[in-house]
Amino acid sequence: MKLPVSTEWVLHCAATLAQLESGATASTAQLAQYFDLPAPYLAKQLKALVKAGLLAAATGPRGGFRIARPISEITLLQIVEAVDGTSPPYECREIRQQGRGALAPEDCRQTCVLAQRMADAHEAWRGSLAGVTLADILASLPPTAPARTRRRLAGIT
Amino acid sequence: MKLPVSTEWVLHCAATLAQLESGATASTAQLAQYFDLPAPYLAKQLKALVKAGLLAAATGPRGGFRIARPISEITLLQIVEAVDGTSPPYECREIRQQGRGALAPEDCRQTCVLAQRMADAHEAWRGSLAGVTLADILASLPPTAPARTRRRLAGIT
Repeated sequence: MKLPVSTEWVLHCAATLAQLESGATASTAQLAQYFDLPAPYLAKQLKALVKAGLLAAATGPRGGFRIARPISEITLLQIVEAVDGTSPPYECREIRQQGRGALAPEDCRQTCVLAQRMADAHEAWRGSLAGVTLADILASLPPTAPARTRRRLAGIT
Repeated sequence: MKLPVSTEWVLHCAATLAQLESGATASTAQLAQYFDLPAPYLAKQLKALVKAGLLAAATGPRGGFRIARPISEITLLQIVEAVDGTSPPYECREIRQQGRGALAPEDCRQTCVLAQRMADAHEAWRGSLAGVTLADILASLPPTAPARTRRRLAGIT
């Protein structure tokens, strides 16, 4: 059970964009150099965040990405699911209904209890990530972090 | 983020073995036919459960697998981690320490807060599965289930 490597990228890029002044943007090239990441693949991930409504993309000479909503309304779950999708890790293929031990369809009207418990665990994971916003993350950084982030990003042309 | 298909297999096989009379066993061939699963690959998964101390393997003409400890002490987490391993889905590769925005090593003595929150979510998932035992699963089955399971398994030679 693995999340894509790009999960770390988008979490850090979103936290970085959340530190910019209101309306300011950063380009894919800037973010790629900031974290030494492959720009073409990073661009694809950032587009996924735009599609999910978490980032806004501005075109033109001063184009780039910015956070699209209040950072207190963007959760880690939204960021992670924007790039990895929402399908749960456990797939129930109803093996209880196949083979020599197959249960009758009328005995399978309810979700298999094993699938239910696996779904409960996934909801616990989702609930944990839904309870953390970008605002929470920023609040845990040193007070000097945003100024440093802006300065370093601005130095990348 | 996906669990292997065999996760469903081992959960159901463990729940099936938990319904046998004390000391009774079922072979790989019986379990494979019971759920219509590929026996060689199922055998590999059952061996992983033995290695994890959840099942015991008996050799000889009446050989097969049986539950190795009280079913109130076998959790879904143990079964899932026996076949999928214990490594968490999120990998922190410390991108905060690379690129033009790299933080100094002395600023990275603590775990990255994003990695911490991802680890919290994984622990929530683990905690949920650790809270469900095979005894809980059996308690949720119809009272007629164990007798039916034994009868069906015994019919497979």
